[in-house]
Order: sequence, then structure tokens, then C-alpha cells
Amino acid sequence: MSTTRRIASEFLGTALLLATVVGSGIMAEALAGGNVAVALLGNTIATGAILVVLITMLGPVSGAHFNPAVTLVMLASAEISKREAAFYMLAQIAGGLVGVWVAHLMFDLSVLQMSVKARTGTGQWIAEGVATFGLLVTILLTRRHRPESIPLSVGLYITAAYWFTASTSFANPAVTLARAFSDSFAGIRLADVPAFVVVQLIGAMLALFLSRWLLGDTGKSAA
Amino acid sequence: MSTTRRIASEFLGTALLLATVVGSGIMAEALAGGNVAVALLGNTIATGAILVVLITMLGPVSGAHFNPAVTLVMLASAEISKREAAFYMLAQIAGGLVGVWVAHLMFDLSVLQMSVKARTGTGQWIAEGVATFGLLVTILLTRRHRPESIPLSVGLYITAAYWFTASTSFANPAVTLARAFSDSFAGIRLADVPAFVVVQLIGAMLALFLSRWLLGDTGKSAA
Amino acid sequence: MSTTRRIASEFLGTALLLATVVGSGIMAEALAGGNVAVALLGNTIATGAILVVLITMLGPVSGAHFNPAVTLVMLASAEISKREAAFYMLAQIAGGLVGVWVAHLMFDLSVLQMSVKARTGTGQWIAEGVATFGLLVTILLTRRHRPESIPLSVGLYITAAYWFTASTSFANPAVTLARAFSDSFAGIRLADVPAFVVVQLIGAMLALFLSRWLLGDTGKSAA
Amino acid sequence: MSTTRRIASEFLGTALLLATVVGSGIMAEALAGGNVAVALLGNTIATGAILVVLITMLGPVSGAHFNPAVTLVMLASAEISKREAAFYMLAQIAGGLVGVWVAHLMFDLSVLQMSVKARTGTGQWIAEGVATFGLLVTILLTRRHRPESIPLSVGLYITAAYWFTASTSFANPAVTLARAFSDSFAGIRLADVPAFVVVQLIGAMLALFLSRWLLGDTGKSAA
Repeated sequence: MSTTRRIASEFLGTALLLATVVGSGIMAEALAGGNVAVALLGNTIATGAILVVLITMLGPVSGAHFNPAVTLVMLASAEISKREAAFYMLAQIAGGLVGVWVAHLMFDLSVLQMSVKARTGTGQWIAEGVATFGLLVTILLTRRHRPESIPLSVGLYITAAYWFTASTSFANPAVTLARAFSDSFAGIRLADVPAFVVVQLIGAMLALFLSRWLLGDTGKSAA
Repeated sequence: MSTTRRIASEFLGTALLLATVVGSGIMAEALAGGNVAVALLGNTIATGAILVVLITMLGPVSGAHFNPAVTLVMLASAEISKREAAFYMLAQIAGGLVGVWVAHLMFDLSVLQMSVKARTGTGQWIAEGVATFGLLVTILLTRRHRPESIPLSVGLYITAAYWFTASTSFANPAVTLARAFSDSFAGIRLADVPAFVVVQLIGAMLALFLSRWLLGDTGKSAA
Repeated sequence: MSTTRRIASEFLGTALLLATVVGSGIMAEALAGGNVAVALLGNTIATGAILVVLITMLGPVSGAHFNPAVTLVMLASAEISKREAAFYMLAQIAGGLVGVWVAHLMFDLSVLQMSVKARTGTGQWIAEGVATFGLLVTILLTRRHRPESIPLSVGLYITAAYWFTASTSFANPAVTLARAFSDSFAGIRLADVPAFVVVQLIGAMLALFLSRWLLGDTGKSAA
Repeated sequence: MSTTRRIASEFLGTALLLATVVGSGIMAEALAGGNVAVALLGNTIATGAILVVLITMLGPVSGAHFNPAVTLVMLASAEISKREAAFYMLAQIAGGLVGVWVAHLMFDLSVLQMSVKARTGTGQWIAEGVATFGLLVTILLTRRHRPESIPLSVGLYITAAYWFTASTSFANPAVTLARAFSDSFAGIRLADVPAFVVVQLIGAMLALFLSRWLLGDTGKSAA
């Protein structure tokens, strides 16, 4: 698979992921009549489902990271070059923004928006650290013994994490940034993004160290 | 498998699909007490589930298109003859109508109805284009590397698309036409059908071009 | 596997199925605060999930019929002896009753109850015929080409059918009879049971004929 | 896999399980606006999903018991040494407590809490016996013929059992004890824990005897 196609795959996957996260949030909130749990159910089912679909179809093309935290962990494991990792992350960020804007277009909303929803504080930060730690542990352990289960496991992990973390689990720096550009159910204030990204990366690195030890790896893992 | 049986399979599958889409919409709306998000949850779960079931059981018989947009993409890929494609589409349209009528019979409603629900405007059209693009990309990419995942992926894709697209994702000209014949939750005005079909076919063709490039195909793909 | 164990498997599976159908109905109705769609969601998720579990674990033991309509179709296909079919059906009926009573015990209700819920009329009968037809078509077609998908397909089929049929899909004479003995969400008047059973058996036989033709069988099918 | 790593796997898995059970309960109750069925739906989906994820990823490491009742059944089947079983159970109890506390931290609640929710009486006890019996039967039968289905089957079993048992199915002594330390949706009074544990162990042992007979085992089973 050529590098261009791999990068296009990361762009496409992250765009469809964000169109789903933001679009289903808008739809769910509009229909739920104020019952936030019902809105979150709709948002959860859509997000979990599309993750399984996207990772199944784009995994063989680009590895289906859709997430700079995943790409950085792969870089730290020397499974991707610095140059390719940089392009992957740019494609994820660009794809995320385009996905958000497509969602706005579909729902007849202004394309350019900034969220005013505050998501900050110790609880939220712990939650994002735990959420990203759990996501990376899931990926790193599952791919060792049962790689064919990665799409379902990631989809189900996020399904659970939308409910068990106080932040509803962003667990992805590109997703976090993109969601700052939507003043809707899934939004987050731009000012709250950097702290989320920091704790996400800490969670991801902790997951890498734990997984290496748990699998008895001394460094680089066999994909 | 004889052609007659393949066509019967398309008829049966599309009929059961529409009986589910329309029947579960009627049931969900009747029980949801005005909470449209709860109604859409019931409609979503039923539709996603039956798609997995139908594609699993009829895929080996007819390919389980149930969708003229899919059949046309297969025709453009020279994987089905013009004659058979025509019969497939007729069977899908006829099956869709019969499915709608069976739903009405089960719920003691007038068999013959026309929807009065307006579904039109730029947002809806973009949504249908995106929905059908995503469905075809899912099918075309997934069948290359993981064909055994097609039933689950299509079911989960539609599960997500019911929520992330503003139109609740028809993504299928035969389904769109059939739903014009039900004045219920899932209905659409007959006058709004042609525009939906046009954007669905545009989305499908874009998906074909993108998938070919992403998979490095020069034309015809190996199923 | 000895015949005694096969019969015990049918008893155990049908008992756990009914404990789930009736127990989750009681729980869901008690918690749903009058929103019947939410109650049906809980009932649906529990029933669909337990079917996958039970068919996966007991399929290799007894075939996991749990349903006289399935056993009769297997008898008509000469895949089970008359004697064993009779014992299977007795075990299913006895298991169903025990399952209902266990549900009542768990919820501190009177063990012996009779439902007063009317479920009758043309729409309901058509619905039960369609529901059972769809269930048997699913089983008969799926086991030919993708037998390993039977547990998931049956679970998802019933998940869909709870919503798309006007009767919420009993689709099983033993389940129908057992539910007459619970005056709760899932109940049905004993007087309405015979008509349900008749249309269920008609739907099952139509499914057998259609499946034979669609698969090009002349009679007995290879399991 | 070294024993230390196996024990760490049991600790990690039980911690993530309890963080999910308790965290999603807090989230669901906070958002559901008093509709307990909607809250239980969120709690159910998160718990079922994380079980599939955890058993898939940690099964190859430690067997993914996360449950003293499972460990004791494995001990009774001589598949684990007494010493290792003791360490497993300690890790499960410690992991469960840590998971509860992490959930509290994420939701900005006091870390140390004791539940005041009464869960007692004959119906609840029968329910816990049935719930644990069903869980162990699922594990013991499924691993014989379809071991690769264990993660999905356990996740779906608990999904169903949250609804069909009057106790919402704890079915796990370590989970039961840990939930005593959370005064939230998922909590249970410490005083009510011992009776739950007793009936859980009775249910587990009945499942062991039944499964041995149903599978024609004379004692030790081949994993």
C-alpha cells in the first residue's frame, strides 16, 4: 500500500469517525427531549458501531489509527517511521475537522463553530487519562493474541468508556481538537483541549509500559 | 445458484428488510410516548440486526444487495450482467413494496398508504449522499480484505448512519421508494424520492472511484 | 451425546430462555415508568443476548432447538426421529414452564399465575406467521452456508422481530404456552395461545418449503 | 506467562471491570432523569461491552477469571493450584476495590464510601444463585466446544442477566464486595454481601456438577 493511500485512509477514517461522533450527538440531543441519558445512548451506539466498521475496512490499509495517541505509541514501538507518523497525525487532524464540518452541513448548521462547553477539572483529567490508558491497553494486548478481534474490541471499549468515564471518553487528541469546532452535544471549549491532550498522552504511555511488561516484551513488539 | 433463485433471494431479502424498517418504526413510535430518540433507538436496533441476519443468510445465494445502488456499482464493476442487474433491481423494488404492505397488515393498518412526511432540502441531500457514499465504501473496502465481516459491518454501518446523518440514512433507492408508500414513522413524500435517489447514486459512484484508488485497482475488482 | 443429555439440554435452554423473557419483562416494566418502548428495549436486549449465549453453548449438545416449531421442521426433514422429537417437545414445554416459575420466584411474585393479556386478531396472527416464517428461514438458510453464524443470527433475528412484528414475536409454541402462565409484561391469555401456535406452525412449514426451493434441495438437507 | 503477570492481569481486569460497573452506574443515574430503566440500559451496555473487551485481551494472559467463583470452580476442577487460586482471589478483591475508587475519583466523589442500598430477601438470593449458576454454566459449556466464543458469550450473558434477575446479577463475590464500597447506583450494603456470596458459590457449584454430567465428564475437564 503506498504511503499516499495510507495517509488518505487515516484522513477518511477520522473524517467518518468525527462525522459520526458529532452528527449523532446533534441528532440524539435534538430528539431526546432533554433526557441526556437517552441522547448519550444514541451517541454511544453510533460511535461504537462506526468504529468497528472503520477499523475493519481500513485496518488492512493503514492500520486504522485515527488517533495521534495510537500513532505515537506505534512510533515509540518503532513500528512506523517519524516521517510517516507526522503525516498520519496531520491527516487525522485534518480529517477530524472535515468530519465535523460535514456533520454541520448535513444538519443545516453553520459550518464554522466553536464550542463553549467547559470540560475541565481533576475528575475530567483523571477520566481522560484512564480512558486513553484503557484504549491503548486494549489495542496493545488484543493485537498480540487476537488481532482479528481489534475492530470489535475497540468499538466495544469506546461503547463502555462513553459511560464509565466522567468525560464520556474522548481518548484521542485529534478527536478532542476537532470537537472544539462544534458547538453541539459533543463539543469541548478550545481552552480545555490542551489539558485533555496532555493526560491522554500520559495515559497512552502508561499503557505502553504496562503492556510491554505484561506481555514480557523487552521493547519492540511483533504486530 | 439459478438466476430465478438469485432474484427470489433479492425479493425476499428486500421484503424482510422493509417489513423491519417500517414495522419497527410503527411499533417504536406507538410505544415511545413522544420521545423520538427512544423511537429511533428501537427502529435502529431492529434495522441493524435484521441486516446482519439477511446478509449472512442470503449473501451466499444472491450477494445480498437489496439495494439498486449496490447493484449498479456491481454493474459498473462488470460483476453482474446488465440483464441480471435489471432483474435484481425490479426484485428489490417489488420486494420493498411487499415488505411495506406486510408491515401494514401486521399492524392492522390500511395496506395502501402514501407518506406525507417532507424530507427535503440541502442538508438532507448532503446527508443521503454521505450515507450512501459511506455504505458503498464500507462494502467495497471490507469485501477486499475481510469479506466474512460484510454482514456485521453493513448492519453496524446502518446502525451508526441512522444517527449521524440528518436524513436517518435511507441510502438505498428501493428502500426510499418503498417508504413513500407508508404514512408512518419511516415514511417519505413520493415527491421527495427522486432527489434522494439522485444524491444516493452520486454518493455510490464517488465511493466506487475512491475505493478503486484506495485499493490500487485499475478497474474491475476481484470479489 | 446420549439422548438423556440432549433432552436435558433442551430443558435447560428453554428454561433459561423463558426465565430471561419473563424476568426481563418484569424488570423492564417495573423500571420504565410507563414508557413501554424503553421497557421493550430492556426486554429485547436481554432476550437477544441470551439466545446467542444459549445456542452457542447448547448447540453442540442438542442442536439448541428450544422451540417445537424448529423440532417439527427437523422432523419433517428427517433429521430427528419421531421418538426423540416427542421428547424434545416435552422438554421444551416443561423447561418453559419451569423458567417462568423461576422468574416469578426471583421477583417475589406468586409462582402460579395466568395471564389476562389479550393477544388476538388478524394482525397479531399475520405477525406470528411472519415472525416464525422469518425465524425458520433464518435457521434453514444460515445453517447451509454459514452454520457458525446461527447463534448470532437467531439472537439478532429475534431482536429485530420484537420490534417489527405487531405481536413482539413469540415465534415458538413452547414459549407461547409458557408465557400464558405469567401475568406480566410478556404474558398472553391461555385462550389466545392455540391460534398463535397454529399460525406459527403454518409459518414454519412455509419457511421449510421456501428454503428447500431456494437452496435447490429435493428433500432432506445436509445439516 | 509468569505467575506475577497472571496475577497482575487478574488485578487489572477486575479493576477495569469495577471502574466500568460503578462508573457507568454513576453516569447513567446522573443523566437518566429518574427513569431507572434508561439508567440500567446505560449500565448494562457498558458492562457487557467491557467484559467482551477484557476477556478477549486478558484471557490469553490469565484466563480472565476476574471472579472468585470462577477461580474456585477451576480449583475444584484441578486446573489451577491452591496457591495460585489464593493469589488470584486476592488480586480480584484488591483490583475490584481499586476500580471502585478510580470511578469515584473520575466523578469527583469521595473515594471512600459505604453503600446504604439494601439488597436482601429470598427473591434476591434466588436471583443471585440463578445468575451465578447461569454464568458458570455458560463458561463451562462454551469453553468445551466453542472456546473462542467465551468473551462474547460472557458479555452477552451478563447483559441479559442485568435484566432477567431481580438482583441485576452481581454473580461474582469480588464484584459484590467491591460494590459495597460505593454509595451509588451499583452499591450494596456491606451487611448484605455475605448472603450474596454464599448463594453465588452454591450456584457456581451446581453449575459445575450439571456441566460435568451434561458433557459426560467424570471429573477434570480438558480446557
